[in-house]
Amino acid sequence: MITHPAYTVEPWCLRETGLHLDLLAQSESLFALGNGHMGWRGNLDEGDPHGVPGSYLAGVYESRPLPYAEIGFGYPEAGQTVVNVTNGKPIRLLVNDHPFDVRYGELRSHERVLDFRSGLLSRSVEWVSPGGQAIAVRSTRLVSLVQRSMAAIHFEIESLGSTISVVLQSELVANEIGSSAFAPDAGDDPRSTADIGSVLVGEQHEHHDLRAYLLHSTAVSGLRVVAAMDHAVDAPDGVRTITETSPDLARVSVMVTLAPGQRLRLVKYVAHGWSGVRSRPALRDQAAAALSAAVHSGWDGLVSEQRAYLDDFWARADVEVDGDEAVQQAVRFGQFHILQAASRAEGRAIAAKGLTGPGYDGHAFWDTEIFVLPLLSHACPAAAVDALRWRRSILPLALERASQLGLAGAAFPWRTIAGHECSGYWPAGTAAFHVGADVAAAAIRHVDATGDLVFERDVALELLVQTARLWCSLGHHDTQGQFRIDGVTGPDEYSAVADNNVYTNLMAQQNLAAAAELALKYPVQAGRLRVTAPEIAAWRGAATAMYVPWDEALGVHPQADGFTHHQVWDFAATAPEQYPLLLHFHYFDLYRKQVVKQADLVLAMYLRPEAFTAEQKARNFAYYEAITVRDSSLSACVQSVLAAETGHIELAHDYLGEAALLDLNDLEHNTRSGLHLAALAGTWIALVPGLGGLREHGTVSFSPRLPERLTRLAINLAVRGRLLRVEITHEQTLYRLVKGEPLEVSHDGTIIQLNVAEPVRCPTSQPATITTLHQPAGRAPTRRGRDAP
Amino acid sequence: MITHPAYTVEPWCLRETGLHLDLLAQSESLFALGNGHMGWRGNLDEGDPHGVPGSYLAGVYESRPLPYAEIGFGYPEAGQTVVNVTNGKPIRLLVNDHPFDVRYGELRSHERVLDFRSGLLSRSVEWVSPGGQAIAVRSTRLVSLVQRSMAAIHFEIESLGSTISVVLQSELVANEIGSSAFAPDAGDDPRSTADIGSVLVGEQHEHHDLRAYLLHSTAVSGLRVVAAMDHAVDAPDGVRTITETSPDLARVSVMVTLAPGQRLRLVKYVAHGWSGVRSRPALRDQAAAALSAAVHSGWDGLVSEQRAYLDDFWARADVEVDGDEAVQQAVRFGQFHILQAASRAEGRAIAAKGLTGPGYDGHAFWDTEIFVLPLLSHACPAAAVDALRWRRSILPLALERASQLGLAGAAFPWRTIAGHECSGYWPAGTAAFHVGADVAAAAIRHVDATGDLVFERDVALELLVQTARLWCSLGHHDTQGQFRIDGVTGPDEYSAVADNNVYTNLMAQQNLAAAAELALKYPVQAGRLRVTAPEIAAWRGAATAMYVPWDEALGVHPQADGFTHHQVWDFAATAPEQYPLLLHFHYFDLYRKQVVKQADLVLAMYLRPEAFTAEQKARNFAYYEAITVRDSSLSACVQSVLAAETGHIELAHDYLGEAALLDLNDLEHNTRSGLHLAALAGTWIALVPGLGGLREHGTVSFSPRLPERLTRLAINLAVRGRLLRVEITHEQTLYRLVKGEPLEVSHDGTIIQLNVAEPVRCPTSQPATITTLHQPAGRAPTRRGRDAP
Repeated sequence: MITHPAYTVEPWCLRETGLHLDLLAQSESLFALGNGHMGWRGNLDEGDPHGVPGSYLAGVYESRPLPYAEIGFGYPEAGQTVVNVTNGKPIRLLVNDHPFDVRYGELRSHERVLDFRSGLLSRSVEWVSPGGQAIAVRSTRLVSLVQRSMAAIHFEIESLGSTISVVLQSELVANEIGSSAFAPDAGDDPRSTADIGSVLVGEQHEHHDLRAYLLHSTAVSGLRVVAAMDHAVDAPDGVRTITETSPDLARVSVMVTLAPGQRLRLVKYVAHGWSGVRSRPALRDQAAAALSAAVHSGWDGLVSEQRAYLDDFWARADVEVDGDEAVQQAVRFGQFHILQAASRAEGRAIAAKGLTGPGYDGHAFWDTEIFVLPLLSHACPAAAVDALRWRRSILPLALERASQLGLAGAAFPWRTIAGHECSGYWPAGTAAFHVGADVAAAAIRHVDATGDLVFERDVALELLVQTARLWCSLGHHDTQGQFRIDGVTGPDEYSAVADNNVYTNLMAQQNLAAAAELALKYPVQAGRLRVTAPEIAAWRGAATAMYVPWDEALGVHPQADGFTHHQVWDFAATAPEQYPLLLHFHYFDLYRKQVVKQADLVLAMYLRPEAFTAEQKARNFAYYEAITVRDSSLSACVQSVLAAETGHIELAHDYLGEAALLDLNDLEHNTRSGLHLAALAGTWIALVPGLGGLREHGTVSFSPRLPERLTRLAINLAVRGRLLRVEITHEQTLYRLVKGEPLEVSHDGTIIQLNVAEPVRCPTSQPATITTLHQPAGRAPTRRGRDAP
Repeated sequence: MITHPAYTVEPWCLRETGLHLDLLAQSESLFALGNGHMGWRGNLDEGDPHGVPGSYLAGVYESRPLPYAEIGFGYPEAGQTVVNVTNGKPIRLLVNDHPFDVRYGELRSHERVLDFRSGLLSRSVEWVSPGGQAIAVRSTRLVSLVQRSMAAIHFEIESLGSTISVVLQSELVANEIGSSAFAPDAGDDPRSTADIGSVLVGEQHEHHDLRAYLLHSTAVSGLRVVAAMDHAVDAPDGVRTITETSPDLARVSVMVTLAPGQRLRLVKYVAHGWSGVRSRPALRDQAAAALSAAVHSGWDGLVSEQRAYLDDFWARADVEVDGDEAVQQAVRFGQFHILQAASRAEGRAIAAKGLTGPGYDGHAFWDTEIFVLPLLSHACPAAAVDALRWRRSILPLALERASQLGLAGAAFPWRTIAGHECSGYWPAGTAAFHVGADVAAAAIRHVDATGDLVFERDVALELLVQTARLWCSLGHHDTQGQFRIDGVTGPDEYSAVADNNVYTNLMAQQNLAAAAELALKYPVQAGRLRVTAPEIAAWRGAATAMYVPWDEALGVHPQADGFTHHQVWDFAATAPEQYPLLLHFHYFDLYRKQVVKQADLVLAMYLRPEAFTAEQKARNFAYYEAITVRDSSLSACVQSVLAAETGHIELAHDYLGEAALLDLNDLEHNTRSGLHLAALAGTWIALVPGLGGLREHGTVSFSPRLPERLTRLAINLAVRGRLLRVEITHEQTLYRLVKGEPLEVSHDGTIIQLNVAEPVRCPTSQPATITTLHQPAGRAPTRRGRDAP
């Protein structure tokens, strides 16, 4: 868990100071650019070598049949796999006879920097060709957060020694070799992506001057994609260009001779678009318009727009951490990537890997709602609304799926790109009905965070109503009148199909109660959804009677009925290389024993804090800490939050560190197939709801606690239309309302009134000293807090 | 549920009086012949038309990859599918220019008879060709129970009108069209077979005189099969023959002119063999030797051997039923087919469909041990021993599978042909660990039924030891010391992966206790299996501490932990066409509700009667009766047994009728893909352990009860080396020891001593009058007893 020396620790950027081919695929994920609509992996400009080539458009997928050894009713027949669309990144370079390839000749220096404030990925190379010609290559790349369809590359080559003959080839490449055929993960790893082969069918190619277009459609799903490019060339006299296209390739070649010190500069503008309905000419013209607008802005215009967009974002979202530089870097890295995954998704799903890689087939799961949206609701509320509007847009499919399953309301898919259930293993997919309550929770939380009543009325109400209907038909009142939800799967993927999963029941309870509340608040809109008074009463009845299992003998909540009677996993007999367990043990074995992949009951304590007493939280946390192995990226941040709340503040720091470094240090060994968005958001969760103690249901409340090594934590937060800054040191917490109407907040349970004129200082509580917890053998987090080596 | 008029009800045969093409596939299963080594479906001699062509050899399978939408550790990679081997049945016939095809010309009469005493399938046809020539065709077919590799057909054609020119073509056909490519069930029915295409690779073909050979091997599994035929021709002068072979076809043609009243007779001898190790010449010569022996016996010899074999069988096994002719026919039909499936299997699995069709991929399941072997242990003990020796022969694979699953001992496959786990859906396969206890129960029961101590020492001990080891590692003692078995699947396939399935726990308890007992009884042999005193103590400890859940509030046993708290299935809202439920509802829905596919807790009460009080049996039976839908052929007979035991004697008769007619009336609409062996054996179970009340652990005991319409039930039973006859009327039960040493039996709990000299008469108890039970709406069995319409 040592930071690879390739990356430096800096507060506002990720800098790679040399090129390590063994880290190439990972670096492509870390250096990915995107805006929620399109994503470019950080592949080298010249295309080769590459780890996983990748360009993605949110919502573009190919269908593939899902095979089953034994078929069952209601199994999804088709899966959806993210498509590596036309690659607009390549700028190949020929120096005299030699292709610029870092594996040949001499690489004198190679640096890449991803800047979180400018939103630019820059690269600087000094290279000597096998023929002895020394050159400098500098490229800067952006995917615009402002002009949604546009990416651009500023590319410069300079001759450092002799006079050289240069050919630049700027390309669009479809069906690139080694794209989907390249399996980024082992074939028997369920977390990898399906190999779908070359799926883009050429429809049209055309060019004029330095502009070129390629149009394709996907073979089975029939989605049309366009990629187009235009160029500005700044070169010494004598430059010549050729533009040519064929179905899968568009190429602009620039030929010039450079004397020592002379430079060739190229700005490449790339537009990406797609549609499931629009015609070829319409889509081509859409790309042409985007290109023209970008050319009109020019490179400098794109760069300054990008900076302005990000300045605004950081003002609302920045978290400053003193005392742990790696965490400082990681939280900004994470927030930047979340913004890149979400800002302009506009009605498409935010996938678990964003648009940074093909992992998990490019699917979106429940983690978007539970881990990613809390951050977005504060930092980029429009993106959070978009994400939940996407959920509303797939309601027709979710209603249909519920109906197929014999249920009322909406059954959201466990994993999907376009809204259809794509899970081929129902105990860990279809049965994980909590996804509905997670969507509801995100909607409730968004209103708490923003006070957005239009969203509440126009989006949240419908989501809550249809998910509440699901719970009412999924559960039943038993002979004692308790409301039970049997045979479902909670967040922990090392259990499945259990009765009364506490997380699920508590989240369903919140969902039902909130649906009733909103239906009464918006009777007209509820009436349009055919909500009746008896239905509201049924929701309330189910919520009130919700059964939550409790193990009296142990004094803890079992994760689900019977869980605490199961055999405890033999951790002592489990070797380090047997993790993650799912790759070494049969599900049957995992499911029937007390071993937890990821926070489940502990997640319930974070999301439904009022449903547990402080003592229950402490006892539960200790109990589950001993059996949780964190084979999921969704766990460390949640454990950090509860560690902080239950007074294990140094442990909270350890888990914060694990969440922060998951991708930067490739802790799960699969960052190459894409970043883990939820874990990236998890750094913020561990810092803000965790150390800051932020809770928002009702009054906005904080319970700040600082581990020993952190000297200061400053949280900038857009909340309920205000801009708030909370600056925590060991001695005091300073609350400052930067902008907006006066706000009532709570500090450690004490209500304080904030207005722009007067900051309020409160003493920061010292964490209580607590007995030591233990984790499963070998599964304790790396120490990062006071006790770190 | 009306007997199709095509079949008459007769005590000793199944007679079809006309040919109904819509019933052709079903009739091919009903008229199948076999001997446990080979099986011939009842396809018409002339090959066309056919429903499902089929010739099978026990143990011959092809491998195919098992696909998964999402892979998991320990999922079986390959499946095994029964192969339709070289077809030795075809005898085609050309009359003048016209092929004999029942769909052309005029079919004046068509009768087929399967005789349970002679073991012959005979066919008698009068047909007028489209050209106006009238002929009679008479064929008789047998698969020898005595000469294991041999089948034979006696074929005769007679000209009834004009002088005709006849060509007979007697063939061996490999890779016949419409064999595996013909999907006998719908593609989305999990009970169907996989389509594996043409898998026989031709290796050799040769012929001389009227004898011909075809040798093939299976493409992937690499098993070598041979089919060979020889002929005796009895014809008027002027007959000519031609013999020819090619890789997939051997043909003997017989050309003759028949004047009115003249006949052509052909006896076709067919030998089948296979091996995974023997060379081509060895296998060919083996077939040649079998042919020569059969030719030496001649047709009459084969027929008389067959009759003698069956006379012996019926003397030991016949059950006489007065008052319900259909049941009388069915029990003999069932016993005959069980014998055909098992008698000469000799070290190969007895599949769920025997060798009568391709259903369930030709796999063997636990039902062989629980439903089929009880009958065989009495009626054909050598076949029962062979079946359990097969289990012992696959122990190395079962030990390996257990080890892969992190368990000790043996994990027998849920479904297999050659011993490898072939289940592609683990919640209903791998998790159904009860199969181990079922094997153990069959071994224990076989010793009870036969007193075979050599088997006990040489086979039963090892099976019990390795299965006991599995239970010890699968279960665990909880904090209260109770031994729990969590997360496994019991017999009921509408539940899965539950804690403490009562059936599983009670069967495991018996397994553990019996293993301990035998290990102490045979210390030398146990020592060779490395059984130690502490291990025996652990088995006894687990058996003694076995946890059996009990619902105090309801006063019944829950099928598994929590079962009785689940929502009861909404039977009122379920339409008749929605059964079987598994084809219309998602497993998730079935698993989480109180709905039972097949006897589970009720089966436990039959197999572990001493573990329940009479009151518990009555209450449990009533409770589960109301939620059991019998979507499985494994249920009615068990419900019949418990109905009889709990005093619902007319209901017992109803269920007896359902078990009896399952295939004869095609109640599950899939008889065409093969007979349901377990249900066939179930008729005997409902009559003997059911109405007769036979229980054998310790003293052989009877509790005879007769439903009103049955006037007499006589059971012939080979038991513990004796031959016993128990003749039950409403007034009295007559016990007669036909042969063997004196025997102590129990009649309604009273011990009586039997010897050959003196029959003993006891009064037959009248069933107590009992309150009415109810079944799920629409799922009551067809009334057959007193209240039948």
